[in-house]
Amino acid sequence: MAGSEVVLLDTWASVFGMRVRIAFMEKSVHYERREEDLINKSPLLLQMNPVHKKIPVLIHHGKPICESNIIVQYIDETWQNKPPPLLPSDPYLRAQARFWADFIDKKIYDAGRKIWSTKLGEEQEKAKKEFIDCMKVLEGQLGEKPYFMGESFGYVDIALVPFYCWFYAWEKFGNISIEKECPKLVAWAKRCMERESVSKTLPDPHKVYEFALELQKKLGIN
Amino acid sequence: MAGSEVVLLDTWASVFGMRVRIAFMEKSVHYERREEDLINKSPLLLQMNPVHKKIPVLIHHGKPICESNIIVQYIDETWQNKPPPLLPSDPYLRAQARFWADFIDKKIYDAGRKIWSTKLGEEQEKAKKEFIDCMKVLEGQLGEKPYFMGESFGYVDIALVPFYCWFYAWEKFGNISIEKECPKLVAWAKRCMERESVSKTLPDPHKVYEFALELQKKLGIN
Repeated sequence: MAGSEVVLLDTWASVFGMRVRIAFMEKSVHYERREEDLINKSPLLLQMNPVHKKIPVLIHHGKPICESNIIVQYIDETWQNKPPPLLPSDPYLRAQARFWADFIDKKIYDAGRKIWSTKLGEEQEKAKKEFIDCMKVLEGQLGEKPYFMGESFGYVDIALVPFYCWFYAWEKFGNISIEKECPKLVAWAKRCMERESVSKTLPDPHKVYEFALELQKKLGIN
Repeated sequence: MAGSEVVLLDTWASVFGMRVRIAFMEKSVHYERREEDLINKSPLLLQMNPVHKKIPVLIHHGKPICESNIIVQYIDETWQNKPPPLLPSDPYLRAQARFWADFIDKKIYDAGRKIWSTKLGEEQEKAKKEFIDCMKVLEGQLGEKPYFMGESFGYVDIALVPFYCWFYAWEKFGNISIEKECPKLVAWAKRCMERESVSKTLPDPHKVYEFALELQKKLGIN
């Protein structure tokens, strides 16, 4: 399949874009990646995702697919003959996988963002507590399993692991230790990092921290 | 299949619960429905959905499935031999169906809620504009098709049509005419109401309006 038939509109620091990159690398699907400048979005991005105007957008044979978890499901269904399967085949386990990916979307991004985007003091303490509470829900769900759905790396791991490159920034801004609070979750993240799909996708945590510092300045926080 | 093997924890005015009721009726699946008091949640609800503590929860053979759109996909996959299929079989169309159901979840509930839960004046005017803008996106997506994904009633229709029983309340509170703004959407809703699964599920709009009035009083609005 020619690269230009599978195009990903993306930006390097996006955890949502990383999900798609990991899914493609797991499935060994070649694609063309185009870096978007979110301050100055390309006409193609605005044309392909007129509703949300957000990355990532997968353009397959000229047709757009938007929203990262939906894209990952699309990749799993479209390249279903290429191993590994990303979602379980059992309907109950599929529903559980979707539930946890949905939980991550609804809770972790906002909770993590608040750590560096709220004012120091009471507001940030509240944000930190909320963040740790959410992470502990995930720690409990992971339990003693190597991956979220059991023995195999898959959909829920792909939904969550990109956030690992933000752990350092969250820890620095929040003066917290995620490893102390959620040791199993950090051990899981390190396990995921042994996979090429993850280690080659996630940017350097220090670069992410510098990026968050710049965002703070732009937004006039602290 | 015995009723007690398929249990739905639900509450009558919940658009999310209605989605599941419609999906079950479309598939002719028998189930036991249990009305929850959201002020005084049952131990079963808290046990079955400890993360969000929300209805609807489907309990199938004692195992919980949460989040309405995830439940509807579960129903489609579990009773896949029972017609009609709720999601399209083509991966691209499935991704589109998921995109629009996700859009409805992210936008319509909050936008509609703001119409009756914000103070009159500038704040409500903003809420009304946001609501109409979202509805017009859906009106545009529907276009001239009988149903959202084409000729057949399915997943996106199930995600949206429960809100139709709130239209009257939104119009009264917001002093707007949804039919004037979005005539195709209202014609679509009336088309859906010709289906037994929808007409037997949606409560009387006047009852919903009274319910919203009571909620306003409880929350001390206007």
